[in-house]
Amino acid sequence: MAELPGNLLVAQSGGPTAVINASLAGVVQEAGRNECIQEIFGGANGILGILNEDLIDINEEKAKTIEALRHTPAAALGTCRYKLDFKGRPEQAAADMDRLFEVLQAHEIRYFIYIGGNDSQDTSHKIHEEALKRGYELRVVGVPKTIDNDLPFTDHCPGYGSVIKYNATTVMEVGIDVASMATEDGACCIVEVMGRSAGWIAAGTVLAKRGNPASPPHLILLPELVFDEEKFLAKVSETVQAHRYCVVVAGEGIKNAAGEEVGADKTHLDAFGHPVLAGVAEKLKQVVEGRLKLKTRTAMLGYAQRAAEHCASLADSNNAFACGEAAARAAVAGPSGSMVKIVREAGVDGSASWSTGLQPLADVANVEHLVPREWITEDGFLPNEKFIEYARPLIEGEVAVPMENGLPNYARLEGVRVEKKLPPR
Amino acid sequence: MAELPGNLLVAQSGGPTAVINASLAGVVQEAGRNECIQEIFGGANGILGILNEDLIDINEEKAKTIEALRHTPAAALGTCRYKLDFKGRPEQAAADMDRLFEVLQAHEIRYFIYIGGNDSQDTSHKIHEEALKRGYELRVVGVPKTIDNDLPFTDHCPGYGSVIKYNATTVMEVGIDVASMATEDGACCIVEVMGRSAGWIAAGTVLAKRGNPASPPHLILLPELVFDEEKFLAKVSETVQAHRYCVVVAGEGIKNAAGEEVGADKTHLDAFGHPVLAGVAEKLKQVVEGRLKLKTRTAMLGYAQRAAEHCASLADSNNAFACGEAAARAAVAGPSGSMVKIVREAGVDGSASWSTGLQPLADVANVEHLVPREWITEDGFLPNEKFIEYARPLIEGEVAVPMENGLPNYARLEGVRVEKKLPPR
Repeated sequence: MAELPGNLLVAQSGGPTAVINASLAGVVQEAGRNECIQEIFGGANGILGILNEDLIDINEEKAKTIEALRHTPAAALGTCRYKLDFKGRPEQAAADMDRLFEVLQAHEIRYFIYIGGNDSQDTSHKIHEEALKRGYELRVVGVPKTIDNDLPFTDHCPGYGSVIKYNATTVMEVGIDVASMATEDGACCIVEVMGRSAGWIAAGTVLAKRGNPASPPHLILLPELVFDEEKFLAKVSETVQAHRYCVVVAGEGIKNAAGEEVGADKTHLDAFGHPVLAGVAEKLKQVVEGRLKLKTRTAMLGYAQRAAEHCASLADSNNAFACGEAAARAAVAGPSGSMVKIVREAGVDGSASWSTGLQPLADVANVEHLVPREWITEDGFLPNEKFIEYARPLIEGEVAVPMENGLPNYARLEGVRVEKKLPPR
Repeated sequence: MAELPGNLLVAQSGGPTAVINASLAGVVQEAGRNECIQEIFGGANGILGILNEDLIDINEEKAKTIEALRHTPAAALGTCRYKLDFKGRPEQAAADMDRLFEVLQAHEIRYFIYIGGNDSQDTSHKIHEEALKRGYELRVVGVPKTIDNDLPFTDHCPGYGSVIKYNATTVMEVGIDVASMATEDGACCIVEVMGRSAGWIAAGTVLAKRGNPASPPHLILLPELVFDEEKFLAKVSETVQAHRYCVVVAGEGIKNAAGEEVGADKTHLDAFGHPVLAGVAEKLKQVVEGRLKLKTRTAMLGYAQRAAEHCASLADSNNAFACGEAAARAAVAGPSGSMVKIVREAGVDGSASWSTGLQPLADVANVEHLVPREWITEDGFLPNEKFIEYARPLIEGEVAVPMENGLPNYARLEGVRVEKKLPPR
């Protein structure tokens, strides 16, 4: 396509990951190599900052800071969960869209790259379509990002490899701890992980087993399958009889047969006859201790898992960076309206390498990709070899984080703001 | 003292840590250098295994496995929480003591090294006194171990440096995550850490601030001070106004003015009018969301923090190893009845080096060492410079863990059992 001189705007959206900044570094470094891109701006806190004309002048950042983003967790530009919600709040969304194009026009933005998950790809798609409708020449490219790994078409989502590397390491370590404490009385430990309605994160902890059935995790509860309390308890019992202990990994979004989230289940009562409401791990603990009289401990890793740069996957970080580079290239080359995807090229001995491709945003928006049933064992309590073959290469290699006084050194953008040209929103 | 030919028995007790195996490696390697020590046995699951005559023949282990214990978390010999409880169950305790000496005698044990926390030092002390009473020549030496850091006389306890290195890293990472998500609506995140009634672990996360008042953690709730809900909420509000977000670290054992544990507090009701019972972080979340209308997330690291070898402190691991070596040396040299302690030698520029010393077990048993009030800021919400000066050197350096396919490689003992000589207990 014809060269399109103008400025590039990049922003980050949704929950941060250990490698979303690696994608940002890829965008910025590749954009810097293209002469048709004049200025590089960052939206502060995603679309929300753009609406507020709160733009960061990335050319003011030091090159070494941009490089250091490759080992810095969370969203350096700031992020948001703001949606252009045409269904729920159509008037607000229409006003937002007008404002957005005012800002794009005022700052001569011709390239817009949005790094995010399902909702953000949907936002990118809407902006792409709106630009066509308005006849405003804009190259929109989406960069995939989500620890949940639930975007379609891409082999995996940047952020996923790192979260499962950290979680598998944690489950391995917790497992050794619980095993060393276990006596004839038996012991159970439940680790709650993120992933919402997708089981990818929970499934990834299977790598801690290294193919040994006796090693933890012994059970993985995936939201893709219905949680059956009786079968679950039977499996815990069986495991404790065989190994003295049982490590369970539970996806936060598992549901019972009635379709209710187990972590928010109000049908179970504690010793005082009151409902238990504190998440899946606490709920399952209550069930295991109450019904099996088995001492149970929990861990609920929360945000720790998605920000764990100190245990991030190099394969993941490199792929995140490559997606950023590919997005900037695709924006320059045109046409508008794609998401970068990762394409797997099978290697030898279970290794893998990857390249990038493009997928129309129209295909991607609001499609949720779950763990396929044929990647799960028949009894539903563990992912099988097919899953392991898929996941193992994603955690290869370690991101080298510079240390100072025993703690990681993470980069921080200067965040010099671009002068505003419009009245406040 | 005179040379005492015989066998050495080493065992691990209480909650595991990232470096309790480094102490074991120190004991075994130093014992192997002493000719008066003939065989080296390990008690499987601490005193419980000894009572069951369940002994591991450590001479059957490969030298490289023993060396690999220096980077392997949890208790390789197994551990227990079994007590010689002369107050609560005097008859059982007396029978246990008889059985214990039968086992020691049957296996010609002349050296007994017990690696553990407060309760274990008490057990060692009782065994030492009993040996004197019985005229059974036995050299008992305790090795300090506890993530809680609440043993007296020793500068710090092996295990503590690693847990605060991991927790400070986690709080730093979670803090960057929450900061990048924070918009004008504000956000709060509460991280619950271990330590029971001692605040050492919670206090250690202050290192994540690196001296910057704006950096997380913004508040640290120590069990040493009474939890005051009003002051706490005021501080959270103030912090969110200043920085848009607030990261709180809460010791699991914090108590209110009535002396009740906040995590088990039954005076607060949830939206259904029922008590909240799921730990401190969940409890505080309820309070912050309910009273400040501030979106709040929690992380409850549980066992993950005490087994996190992948983020262990080299200074801590080296000190743990040195304590093990010193214990074997002290046992050979005699007399019986000491705990190894770590002695700090101040270095330049806030650095430190350490040597080991000995403290009579009689002084140590059942004394709990808490965070001194003068190491906490006046308002009670953060440890001060005195604490930081103490804690900073403890997290220096990283334990190099060998990796395979993206995950740590941890050692596992063969665990060949010593032939039993006695009838079952």
